[in-house]
Amino acid sequence: MNGPIRRVAVVGAGLVGSGWAIVFARAGLDVAIFDESEAIRAAVLDRIAASLDDMRGAGLVADPQPILGRLRVAASLEEAVGEADYVQESVFERVEAKRAISLAIDAVMRPEAVVGSSSSGIPASAFTEECRNRARFLVVHPVNPPHLVPLVELVPAPWTDPELLPWLRGEMARTGQAPIVVNREIEGFILNRLQGALLNEAWALFEDGYASAADIDLTVSHGLGLRWSFMGPFETIDLNAPGGIDDYARRLGPLYHSIARSRTDPHPWSDDLAARAAEERRRALPLKDLPERSAWRDRRLIALAVHRRSQDS
Amino acid sequence: MNGPIRRVAVVGAGLVGSGWAIVFARAGLDVAIFDESEAIRAAVLDRIAASLDDMRGAGLVADPQPILGRLRVAASLEEAVGEADYVQESVFERVEAKRAISLAIDAVMRPEAVVGSSSSGIPASAFTEECRNRARFLVVHPVNPPHLVPLVELVPAPWTDPELLPWLRGEMARTGQAPIVVNREIEGFILNRLQGALLNEAWALFEDGYASAADIDLTVSHGLGLRWSFMGPFETIDLNAPGGIDDYARRLGPLYHSIARSRTDPHPWSDDLAARAAEERRRALPLKDLPERSAWRDRRLIALAVHRRSQDS
Repeated sequence: MNGPIRRVAVVGAGLVGSGWAIVFARAGLDVAIFDESEAIRAAVLDRIAASLDDMRGAGLVADPQPILGRLRVAASLEEAVGEADYVQESVFERVEAKRAISLAIDAVMRPEAVVGSSSSGIPASAFTEECRNRARFLVVHPVNPPHLVPLVELVPAPWTDPELLPWLRGEMARTGQAPIVVNREIEGFILNRLQGALLNEAWALFEDGYASAADIDLTVSHGLGLRWSFMGPFETIDLNAPGGIDDYARRLGPLYHSIARSRTDPHPWSDDLAARAAEERRRALPLKDLPERSAWRDRRLIALAVHRRSQDS
Repeated sequence: MNGPIRRVAVVGAGLVGSGWAIVFARAGLDVAIFDESEAIRAAVLDRIAASLDDMRGAGLVADPQPILGRLRVAASLEEAVGEADYVQESVFERVEAKRAISLAIDAVMRPEAVVGSSSSGIPASAFTEECRNRARFLVVHPVNPPHLVPLVELVPAPWTDPELLPWLRGEMARTGQAPIVVNREIEGFILNRLQGALLNEAWALFEDGYASAADIDLTVSHGLGLRWSFMGPFETIDLNAPGGIDDYARRLGPLYHSIARSRTDPHPWSDDLAARAAEERRRALPLKDLPERSAWRDRRLIALAVHRRSQDS
């Protein structure tokens, strides 16, 4: 059996990787960070310090110093990975890049270490087959940014040691994340499939002129998204019929089946359609203001995390 | 042009109707409540007072007394509706019940009044055709409970006066709700179509054994639902690619199209499937505890409303 994770290597230190570094260091683990880019290696600790400062300002982190004290930048992949119990890989999402870094990690890892890839769509079976320690590799897909949105999808390849899953689930929960287990590989895993189902319906409604993109957004941000920020879709419907989820399924299943049958001929999000949505969005938010709005999103996520911590579960 | 709404009639005073009464009275409007059931008429003000007390306890309402002072129970439909500028109808969701109450309201309403039905699925064209004032009727679909979740869908019938829509949108916004306009009737309107798309994918993933119902719920409650509680799906993806929504569509459209193509043969939520989900849910939450958990949900919605009010938009 694997013991508790003490030393973590974060490989790839862009937005996702640096968020992961915060997650692990905040949980009291020692974190070695490596990125191929010397510029990123030089900047990553400052970027993390700035994030921790924002979190401290909102009351989400008491004191950044001990967290920063557990982080170090390694000069080489081997230095970062060689002693790690757990490696979180977050390099660019291209299968060739994933395969190359997995083989490189494989060559220097302790055989009892575990390697999770932040891959958001490419399954581990597509890039870990040739690894000597392939039974120790899987996808560990976070939501961006990982230190503010806790969900993590654990997705094993067919050759991943199944005993790793309950262990890693416990370890990820111990770091404060919310891990789920995807029992076998599927395109888009769970999170992006659920997001995609809603997005596809949203695009179709917009394309057919039923509502503006802004009104479709309001339907979620002032309607569906409120309950979904503390309850999942099954619990939501379980509480929406006197007899629970099966009662709900009997009452409303036919309506939802009928809705589903109206969408059996999906077509791509065309360039024209995307341009129409972009035109509406750019009137609401000029392209130059996107970074500022993204910073607003992160402030809202921080404030929401503080709010959630104040609630009972 | 219609002027501002001053007097409201709430017809049907179950959970939805009494929530609407709070919405209108909280906004400073005079509200007359009528329900066919004498027992509901006798109990509704106490139920509303209890809701307001919960809201006051959480800091969402300063003083319930002036709100309660604007509410009265009418002894007849005519007494409630006769002087109203706006009628919100929330009777049982059956087309025959909707048709009967619409005709009854039609017979006693001022011809310049407007009648919104809380119908969550039946379009106004199915129950207002024979009304003398049918151009003044439409669907005004809230989320439950309306005083805690602000979204409202305005859905005109083909014969609804189109000038009502911008006017009612403004009036609903003035009450503190978040109105959207559904340009023409469609099964499920916008909100339940979006919910249905996500639910259908969730059921399919559960049915095929990719994850437990609890893990699918976590994917939303600790992942997708966080951003969606303050941003809609289009703004979410607009901020998730450097070039905005059209850039995102180009990068990720093919993945989502592929996911959609894997679900072109939807089947009903079978009794067996519902029973399997119910078994898992009942282990997590016995049926007898559903009401207590629903009260928890409402406390969370109140706390979330307080949190949202503290944020910048």
